[in-house]
Amino acid sequence: MSKTAQAASATIAKMVYGFGGGVADGDASMKNLLGGKGANLAEMSNLGLPVPPGFTITTEVCTAFYANGRAYPDGLKEAVDAALVRVGELVDREFADPARPLLVSVRSGARASMPGMMDTVLNLGLNDETVKGLAALSGDERFAYDSYRRFIQMYSNVVLGLDHHAFEEILETYKEDNDFILDTELSASDWKEIISAYKKEVKDASDRDFPQDANDQLWGAITAVFGSWRNERANVYRRLQGIPESWGTAVNVQAMVFGNMGATSATGVAFTRDPSTGENIRYGEFLINAQGEDVVAGIRTPQPIMKARRIAMGENEPSMEEAMPAAFGELSGIFQKLETHYRDMQDIEFTVQEGKLWMLQTRNGKRTAAASMKIAVDMCREGLISEEEAVGRVDPHSLDQLLHPTLDPDAPRDLFLSGLPASPGAASGEIVFSSDEAERLSQEGRNVILVRVETSPEDIHGMHAARAIVTARGGMTSHAAVVARGMGRPCVCGAGDLRINEASGELEAAGRKLSKGDTITVDGAAGKVYVGEVAKIEPELHGDFAELMSWADKHRRMQVRANAETPHDAEVARGFGAEGIGLCRTEHMFFDADRIVAVRRMILAETKEGRESALAKLLPMQRSDFEALFKVMAGLPVTVRLLDPPLHEFLPHSDEEIEEVAASSGVDAAKLKRRAQSLHEFNPMLGHRGCRLGVSYPEIYEMQTRAIIEAAIGVARETGNPVIPEIMVPLVGEARELAFVKERIDAIAREVISAAGVELEYLVGTMIELPRAALTADKIAADAEFFSFGTNDLTQTTFGLSRDDSASFLSDYLRTKIYEVDPFVTLDDEGVGELVRIAVEKGRRARPGLKLGICGEHGGDPKSIRIVEGIGLDYVSCSPYRTPIARLAAAQAALQKGDA
Amino acid sequence: MSKTAQAASATIAKMVYGFGGGVADGDASMKNLLGGKGANLAEMSNLGLPVPPGFTITTEVCTAFYANGRAYPDGLKEAVDAALVRVGELVDREFADPARPLLVSVRSGARASMPGMMDTVLNLGLNDETVKGLAALSGDERFAYDSYRRFIQMYSNVVLGLDHHAFEEILETYKEDNDFILDTELSASDWKEIISAYKKEVKDASDRDFPQDANDQLWGAITAVFGSWRNERANVYRRLQGIPESWGTAVNVQAMVFGNMGATSATGVAFTRDPSTGENIRYGEFLINAQGEDVVAGIRTPQPIMKARRIAMGENEPSMEEAMPAAFGELSGIFQKLETHYRDMQDIEFTVQEGKLWMLQTRNGKRTAAASMKIAVDMCREGLISEEEAVGRVDPHSLDQLLHPTLDPDAPRDLFLSGLPASPGAASGEIVFSSDEAERLSQEGRNVILVRVETSPEDIHGMHAARAIVTARGGMTSHAAVVARGMGRPCVCGAGDLRINEASGELEAAGRKLSKGDTITVDGAAGKVYVGEVAKIEPELHGDFAELMSWADKHRRMQVRANAETPHDAEVARGFGAEGIGLCRTEHMFFDADRIVAVRRMILAETKEGRESALAKLLPMQRSDFEALFKVMAGLPVTVRLLDPPLHEFLPHSDEEIEEVAASSGVDAAKLKRRAQSLHEFNPMLGHRGCRLGVSYPEIYEMQTRAIIEAAIGVARETGNPVIPEIMVPLVGEARELAFVKERIDAIAREVISAAGVELEYLVGTMIELPRAALTADKIAADAEFFSFGTNDLTQTTFGLSRDDSASFLSDYLRTKIYEVDPFVTLDDEGVGELVRIAVEKGRRARPGLKLGICGEHGGDPKSIRIVEGIGLDYVSCSPYRTPIARLAAAQAALQKGDA
Repeated sequence: MSKTAQAASATIAKMVYGFGGGVADGDASMKNLLGGKGANLAEMSNLGLPVPPGFTITTEVCTAFYANGRAYPDGLKEAVDAALVRVGELVDREFADPARPLLVSVRSGARASMPGMMDTVLNLGLNDETVKGLAALSGDERFAYDSYRRFIQMYSNVVLGLDHHAFEEILETYKEDNDFILDTELSASDWKEIISAYKKEVKDASDRDFPQDANDQLWGAITAVFGSWRNERANVYRRLQGIPESWGTAVNVQAMVFGNMGATSATGVAFTRDPSTGENIRYGEFLINAQGEDVVAGIRTPQPIMKARRIAMGENEPSMEEAMPAAFGELSGIFQKLETHYRDMQDIEFTVQEGKLWMLQTRNGKRTAAASMKIAVDMCREGLISEEEAVGRVDPHSLDQLLHPTLDPDAPRDLFLSGLPASPGAASGEIVFSSDEAERLSQEGRNVILVRVETSPEDIHGMHAARAIVTARGGMTSHAAVVARGMGRPCVCGAGDLRINEASGELEAAGRKLSKGDTITVDGAAGKVYVGEVAKIEPELHGDFAELMSWADKHRRMQVRANAETPHDAEVARGFGAEGIGLCRTEHMFFDADRIVAVRRMILAETKEGRESALAKLLPMQRSDFEALFKVMAGLPVTVRLLDPPLHEFLPHSDEEIEEVAASSGVDAAKLKRRAQSLHEFNPMLGHRGCRLGVSYPEIYEMQTRAIIEAAIGVARETGNPVIPEIMVPLVGEARELAFVKERIDAIAREVISAAGVELEYLVGTMIELPRAALTADKIAADAEFFSFGTNDLTQTTFGLSRDDSASFLSDYLRTKIYEVDPFVTLDDEGVGELVRIAVEKGRRARPGLKLGICGEHGGDPKSIRIVEGIGLDYVSCSPYRTPIARLAAAQAALQKGDA
Repeated sequence: MSKTAQAASATIAKMVYGFGGGVADGDASMKNLLGGKGANLAEMSNLGLPVPPGFTITTEVCTAFYANGRAYPDGLKEAVDAALVRVGELVDREFADPARPLLVSVRSGARASMPGMMDTVLNLGLNDETVKGLAALSGDERFAYDSYRRFIQMYSNVVLGLDHHAFEEILETYKEDNDFILDTELSASDWKEIISAYKKEVKDASDRDFPQDANDQLWGAITAVFGSWRNERANVYRRLQGIPESWGTAVNVQAMVFGNMGATSATGVAFTRDPSTGENIRYGEFLINAQGEDVVAGIRTPQPIMKARRIAMGENEPSMEEAMPAAFGELSGIFQKLETHYRDMQDIEFTVQEGKLWMLQTRNGKRTAAASMKIAVDMCREGLISEEEAVGRVDPHSLDQLLHPTLDPDAPRDLFLSGLPASPGAASGEIVFSSDEAERLSQEGRNVILVRVETSPEDIHGMHAARAIVTARGGMTSHAAVVARGMGRPCVCGAGDLRINEASGELEAAGRKLSKGDTITVDGAAGKVYVGEVAKIEPELHGDFAELMSWADKHRRMQVRANAETPHDAEVARGFGAEGIGLCRTEHMFFDADRIVAVRRMILAETKEGRESALAKLLPMQRSDFEALFKVMAGLPVTVRLLDPPLHEFLPHSDEEIEEVAASSGVDAAKLKRRAQSLHEFNPMLGHRGCRLGVSYPEIYEMQTRAIIEAAIGVARETGNPVIPEIMVPLVGEARELAFVKERIDAIAREVISAAGVELEYLVGTMIELPRAALTADKIAADAEFFSFGTNDLTQTTFGLSRDDSASFLSDYLRTKIYEVDPFVTLDDEGVGELVRIAVEKGRRARPGLKLGICGEHGGDPKSIRIVEGIGLDYVSCSPYRTPIARLAAAQAALQKGDA
């Protein structure tokens, strides 16, 4: 033994942990050491549940095994032998004893579940001698030889590395030759012949006899399980799931129990509650006279374990409740015991051997979103878990499913196209290519799906009119995605295979063509587009939702606001519990048909006076926008962002559009074109936008300020319940920019307030959306009463990554794991988060009462919410439909922080 | 007196500092308190030079004056009175005494020179009585009354705020009425009449008599000078020059001396060396029987003070040396004394009153770039200053003038257009609009100026062929500007008024049209374009330059490298003392006609194999590029940046270009167009470029690595003097990006090195040009052996500011002082500099030997060099022609740091 191995074993205090017979060396808390399966087997033993005895070789042994060039630490052999003896004693058998042979299963079990990735060997310990003992003990020769041939087949494949097809072929040929159809038709003598053929195959293929020594078999299997930790399949899975190789796997060796020993034996799986609806009824299936693999093979149909369910399903075969009342009664008690113990819904595996119930596995069960919520709320009501725990049990993301229609999982479907799951929900409608047409058809009461290469602010009305949006370009935070989420419209983005031919009215993907007017169905949560109509399930929000949210609100520290500009969006947001508006994008108000003309006139004006005259036309419109919004949000804060996008976004671009706009608005086409050209930018994201507009054209922000303050005064007068307008200056990168703009805002506000003879509180603050703003936040805080982190743009500039252009290579980055997540979906803690931390620290130092929030898309992402809770922001703001998600996620983040 | 004023005066220990009679209360070190003029008057007094006695009221009094609502601190009056008495004693006069009146000048004098911004009053103390005393004392009635009327005129304007035109009109009318042409023709009685008219004008305009009380006059003047600190003119000047308002001005009250008391009196200005050439000869002008304002008025032509110069100029009027040998002798001695004392060339003002020399001012003289260098080197050789001081005396920017041709300042010129001074130097040539034409005509031996809306990498050959470049768009760091500076071509950028009509072959600016083929002259240092040919002065580099640079190199800590890709640029750089190449942009090698075809084939390839086959064609070309470069730089490090720009930069864009390229390269036009469209990006700066290309298409960087390593091995074999290739990965924002790319670089490098059977040292490092790279520099340093700060892109992303688009609003930002400087010209210490500091700190902590440099445009900017010296980078890299500037600036930065 090498020094390394000595060193490795020297640090391992205990390599083998036994369980069974009502006691165990380990428990459920030792998942890292024993793996999930081993820890839960130990826990169940401790609970006194009937677990077939066995032992777990720890993950530390696995690590030592690899550290020492695939050799075992000293003392392992002895420890395993001792554990085997104890297992034998508990079941009154002895390993390798021909008369009363102990048979074992050898299974992997890592810290994290890796279903199907690693190897399992059953019935180990059988050989030409012990099979006779098993036959005698069970009184069932056919069962014994069937078990033996299964063992040879499995062991040859898993441990000896032989091709399983060869064995299947032997069996198939034998059945054909003898006119058998089902395996059950084969007798003990048939299995004996097959066993001979199997052993010959092993000898032929590997030039070795099939191992007859039970200890050789055992060590071969243990080595195979440890070896499987680094097989190709497992390596890929680990990389994809982000599971470190260093964790290693444990090996569980456990006495075999048999569900295939006749009519009093059975095997089954069950959930302690319905994993689909969450109802508090037992739920499970079982098969009489079968082993686990038979259930999986699907040759026989399993039966419900509950009588009531059997009857509801119109089944005639008896349920477990009827067929095995004693075992079922015991199982029912165990269900109760496990739920009380684990305080969560359990997914269990069991076997009944000749009337005796054995528990093979328990773990927290997977469930649907609806079930997750119901179980959490029910368990809290039942006193099983606390409110805090109930809040923690529901994945905030899953609320998306509960708030939007989803495709009926059983409905047939015909996939046309895949893209990014940009905004959840499902909708069907006829294909349209333009926003104007979407609006027109929608007004006729038709359901339309807007399909575009990409969308721009000019498409807002079409996106609103459409039931869903599909784009060929753009990522998860492209214009289409952001706006669709804000409106609650399903959206599939960046469907790179999509070719749109507007001229011919056709779209094409993967060689298939559809035409304008054809019906498609969009599944925004899955990023899929289907041909034709697919059946959908409407969301149902019931009392459980409201109750869970009320618990969440109780434990939440951060406020949750919504990003909204229209009264409708604001109403949706308030309905979903938003506590204010964190981002009202005023430019969205500029695209209405009657306004865009004035906006364009303003842009085309060559003098300040010309601009002011056009702005004067916009003023009453903006004021009425704000009045409507402020009425909905009465009593709550509303953050209004001053004009942000570059002016060219408001001008037409193609020659055709220019001609059209010129004709309809009475502007000279050549002039319009010249202006559009002169405003063209190479990198508009980094161009003449945000407060840079406010510096070049102070009159624009002055008009907007006037509209905001006048509206606030008007609504306060009318309702007696004033909003607190928070005027937000975008794209500040230098304190003097904000000072320049704020001076003008304050001058106008003072003038309007004093003319009205009222008192009005308003705040002036800024977006922090540029690295330089974060780095100089102390200086900026001198003039800012609040910071709202615009993490979309901050992510773009921190990474130097355009969200509109990144789709083409982001997939390469996610595939190679260079990025663990799309940084536009989840806040990049290390880079962007660091800037947020710097800004918070510097900002609060300069102005202790500084109000801090986030209004980027990350404001609705649970992981990002956890990060900003850690940083200590005061609020998050997200799209209206994500408000409940944010409320729940904020509560979880606060609770987790409290725990930490 | 208010509490504030009491508090203010309480903190002022001494409000009035006297000087004169060989002693002074202050000295040259007290500029902040006494202003520049006051401090130097005190210093000259201390040196025993003949300074008319006087006193300075400190800047603290100015501050107190404003703090207390324009009222003076207690005790000031008494201090001024006492100082006046002492001045009177020194000149044997008494203030306000009718018989022996003391006349004084009252002048402002701030810490920083603000020429012409604030007010001056001369001859103060004259009234209807004292004028008679002055007449008697001087024996010159005409002089006395002329002085009186000058005083009334000046005082009425400066102190009483009356319009000076009224007084000028009175004088003109009088002269016309009496047929006088020159003022000298007027007699004492004429002046008396004019004085009456002046006094009537004062009474009419201000409803008050002209003050006859000398003390009233004095306090009026002092208050006017303090008041002028905040006049409109001064406010604007201060804002433009960044002078804080809080500094305040001092007031200097000084006994009058008169250069206009006949043939033994004179006034003059002089430099201790020739400010134009720097030669060590006295240089100055004087006027007999004149006051300072007469010199300025330009009615009489001043004479040289030196006989030799008079003769050289062919003048007949005597020089001062001849006309006033005694005063001249004394002045010569003072020149020597002042230079020895101040250890720099002095700019002085003097007056001779009746044979007696008086010194009125001395200060360090302004000088040309050539003079600056000569004076510094000469003074060091003369032992007057140290090498370190000599190095510190020359403004590195001024070397631009010495390294490039400049327009003859005396040559006539016809301005056509103004733009940004993007690259220094002057050149004339005929207008061409395309790079191909520029190359063709240049090969015919014709001088051409390339005029474009903007340039792109496809214009490299045309820019190289042209004598100068003019663009309508783009800022100081636009493509045109960067490349032009790199090539040493004069360039005027962002000339917004320029309209180019390629079709008609015309260009237009300010209503004037020029045609293709017309000659223009470009002054890149001034940002001007002239019609026709303008005479130029060629630069002369002589021994002084080499000597100064050798001193600079001795005291420099940072290395200086150059940004270069061609052997020619590399040779220029080595010639200018570059110690390696800090940035070789490999994409510049891709635009040659024979290469672009292969590059485009690579881009159009739809498979990895297709790309590899196209890359195989490029490999020998890239290798030979590197071989040529490595030979020039043998023995020095060469940093090669792998492909950086987005691929669409290599494809044609307009339909016409696409057709042309398709035809010439045999590619399908439709396919080419589709690919160009699919590669289109909204924000290419933030798009699929830099190492993102290396992740998506690893084969590109593999080819480049192979070319670099093969070339290095080849050159090492051939010359025995190997370069150390430093392979630089661009646009890294995440450590795993670099790890991914580096793994492939190392694999190829190992393979090539092992196949060649040699040893070769190479480094792999990265650009730090994204905020996230700086913030995660510790992680990135794990795989980076060097960081090169790409501060162009880092500035763009930190500010969220596109250098190509910022020209349109940057002027607003500079005008409003929101930005103090263009952040693309001088490194933004507060934001970008902070990121550099973070990256250096984190990077060095993770990898102590990390090599750190800067290769952005800032690498050649002296202020930025000072910042990065402070941060502790190892080298700067700049365009070849800026290498000497960087060497000098780096030396100054190191010396300043040592001083600090």
